[in-house]
Amino acid sequence: MHSTDILLKTLNKEGILRLTLNDVKRRNALSEAMLAALGAAFDEASDDPSVRVIILSANGPAFCAGHDLKEMTAGRSKPDGGRAYFASVMSMCAGVMQGIVNCQKPVIAEVTGIATAAGCQLVASCDLALAAESAQFSTPGVHIGLFCSTPMVALSRNVSNKHAMEMLLTGDMTSAARAAEIGLVNRVLSEDMLQAAVLEMAGKIASKSSMTLATGKRAFYAQREMSLSQAYDYASQVMVDNMMARDAEEGIGAFIEKRQPRWQDA
Amino acid sequence: MHSTDILLKTLNKEGILRLTLNDVKRRNALSEAMLAALGAAFDEASDDPSVRVIILSANGPAFCAGHDLKEMTAGRSKPDGGRAYFASVMSMCAGVMQGIVNCQKPVIAEVTGIATAAGCQLVASCDLALAAESAQFSTPGVHIGLFCSTPMVALSRNVSNKHAMEMLLTGDMTSAARAAEIGLVNRVLSEDMLQAAVLEMAGKIASKSSMTLATGKRAFYAQREMSLSQAYDYASQVMVDNMMARDAEEGIGAFIEKRQPRWQDA
Amino acid sequence: MHSTDILLKTLNKEGILRLTLNDVKRRNALSEAMLAALGAAFDEASDDPSVRVIILSANGPAFCAGHDLKEMTAGRSKPDGGRAYFASVMSMCAGVMQGIVNCQKPVIAEVTGIATAAGCQLVASCDLALAAESAQFSTPGVHIGLFCSTPMVALSRNVSNKHAMEMLLTGDMTSAARAAEIGLVNRVLSEDMLQAAVLEMAGKIASKSSMTLATGKRAFYAQREMSLSQAYDYASQVMVDNMMARDAEEGIGAFIEKRQPRWQDA
Repeated sequence: MHSTDILLKTLNKEGILRLTLNDVKRRNALSEAMLAALGAAFDEASDDPSVRVIILSANGPAFCAGHDLKEMTAGRSKPDGGRAYFASVMSMCAGVMQGIVNCQKPVIAEVTGIATAAGCQLVASCDLALAAESAQFSTPGVHIGLFCSTPMVALSRNVSNKHAMEMLLTGDMTSAARAAEIGLVNRVLSEDMLQAAVLEMAGKIASKSSMTLATGKRAFYAQREMSLSQAYDYASQVMVDNMMARDAEEGIGAFIEKRQPRWQDA
Repeated sequence: MHSTDILLKTLNKEGILRLTLNDVKRRNALSEAMLAALGAAFDEASDDPSVRVIILSANGPAFCAGHDLKEMTAGRSKPDGGRAYFASVMSMCAGVMQGIVNCQKPVIAEVTGIATAAGCQLVASCDLALAAESAQFSTPGVHIGLFCSTPMVALSRNVSNKHAMEMLLTGDMTSAARAAEIGLVNRVLSEDMLQAAVLEMAGKIASKSSMTLATGKRAFYAQREMSLSQAYDYASQVMVDNMMARDAEEGIGAFIEKRQPRWQDA
Repeated sequence: MHSTDILLKTLNKEGILRLTLNDVKRRNALSEAMLAALGAAFDEASDDPSVRVIILSANGPAFCAGHDLKEMTAGRSKPDGGRAYFASVMSMCAGVMQGIVNCQKPVIAEVTGIATAAGCQLVASCDLALAAESAQFSTPGVHIGLFCSTPMVALSRNVSNKHAMEMLLTGDMTSAARAAEIGLVNRVLSEDMLQAAVLEMAGKIASKSSMTLATGKRAFYAQREMSLSQAYDYASQVMVDNMMARDAEEGIGAFIEKRQPRWQDA
């Protein structure tokens, strides 16, 4: 199967790249092929000046069902019982998730259907997420003896401990409305309003300076892992560098002169 | 007083251990005797294969009133003014709270009545918490010149800074409904529905593989203290080890074959 | 302009210090003069025994509009293009924000009007915040090519990642009601009720032992940056020292004897 088949890509003239998970019959599982396609897509988009913002969406009733358990199980037939294979898949998956965080372009999840296990992790790893009313989320690994330990890395960086633990220990489905309450998604919309809302948000972000967005996104995740005083030292330096950049000079000038800014990379 | 009197223990056939604070006339204060009883109970349950999940509940109008102030005050008569005694009680208490976090079995607080100071910390330290509508929470140390500095360790790992600070600086009571909003408890139920809801949740968790739950709980709290990339390296390794375990092989096999899994330790 | 003009100070007999941003025609921007006045005010209040709690409020339609962009832009005319000047302003600003966190007295933001960029950071940096229904918050740096990288240090320590990212990447306004939902402010009140609610909260805090409040506030922010076991070791020591202090002995004694405590510094 060709990777363009399981992951569709369309780039509009505003610089909005839509990546659509399209392995419908496997419920968009994160097979090796899908992980490779996703990893490559985020890496390329990160450096592509024609891409300003990314939407991650899905075809079919499942947003993403997590790892491909049949593929994983097949790995058990190897001489080492699959250990090296599992390690390689986990490393690949962790790489894709961190590739979203490290991608220079903001990433918005447009969640329709069910996002489970590593599929829930995918949503949690995006910078922003809007969900359809019928979307559902779970980390159901406990049902099959395999705790969602990597999904919880992303999940627990979005929601509070008790909310994360409830999902992880029970494996229960979380509704879109509840996901918004606990901070896993930004907002919930009716099915027929979702795509327009995501496009509006993406369009807004696409109209900003890509240099500024990349600077800010990188700094956001970096400073989250620092102490308060380290974070201030670091972020102050980021601000100074940002002030010296052409787009800040242009943007501030435009603001003072009450005109539209023209970004260097637009 | 015998420790079984102030802390009741009942284990049902599903592996649900109920620990009930039962020092009603002292409002279930965390006296030395209560701390010793609780610490021992969590330690034993952690290693006991017949225990699959723990419920922490209380008899009487107070869930737990925190430290026993009369006992603490009596400590002042010692030659050092009580310093060594206070240090020993604080160390014991911190040990009990971390014993809940480090316990291999999931712990659910079933909160009825008032949980104050170290009693509120007890709830915050549990993995999950369901509360009766009439439950109330506070960290009232400021009223008596003794800031709830150890309770805030657990509290601030459950709720956001401003919510924690409001409780800590004012000492005001927080209603169960508000506690659910800010993330201190998972959910609120009417008095007559609470026990059934807790049992349902406990039963669900008790039906999972204990090995898997222990693996996941340990990994959860460990990865929370790591950077994102460290957390992914660590959790990926946990996933690989979990995949190699018999219960994951059985669980995934059962899932693919659409049958109930049979856990090794069930 | 004299610093007392742009920052008003009134201290009532309960020990409540009200600092009022009063540079209305510049929308209370954090000009160099304003930063200097604020920094000095928090430093002085921190050590002044007559101050027990601080309210930060504002005159005019804007709570605070963030940095003074005209002043910043003027800095570009320097031989180095403004780099050294920007670094100095950023350092000053980060110092003021950390001065609020490190101030020994609790600080309550009373937010009326619009709090943007470093103005939003000011609210996020306070220990507590109550907002008028009409208050609004934003980190709009993306509009002008200058990502709100220092505001996000404080913002992301109050609200969850996706909520912070939505404000930072879109630059959109957040209503007071939404700010309360996501944890940026504690509560929202109608315009005519706000000041009374803030005064009630301040009065409650002012009635506590200043030693105890200072001990607790310092410990709160310190332990947030530690691992769980480090935090417990540290906080247990803080509790022991607090127990040995005169105000805890008095407070606990008064509690047991059912009388009002008399604090040493009252």
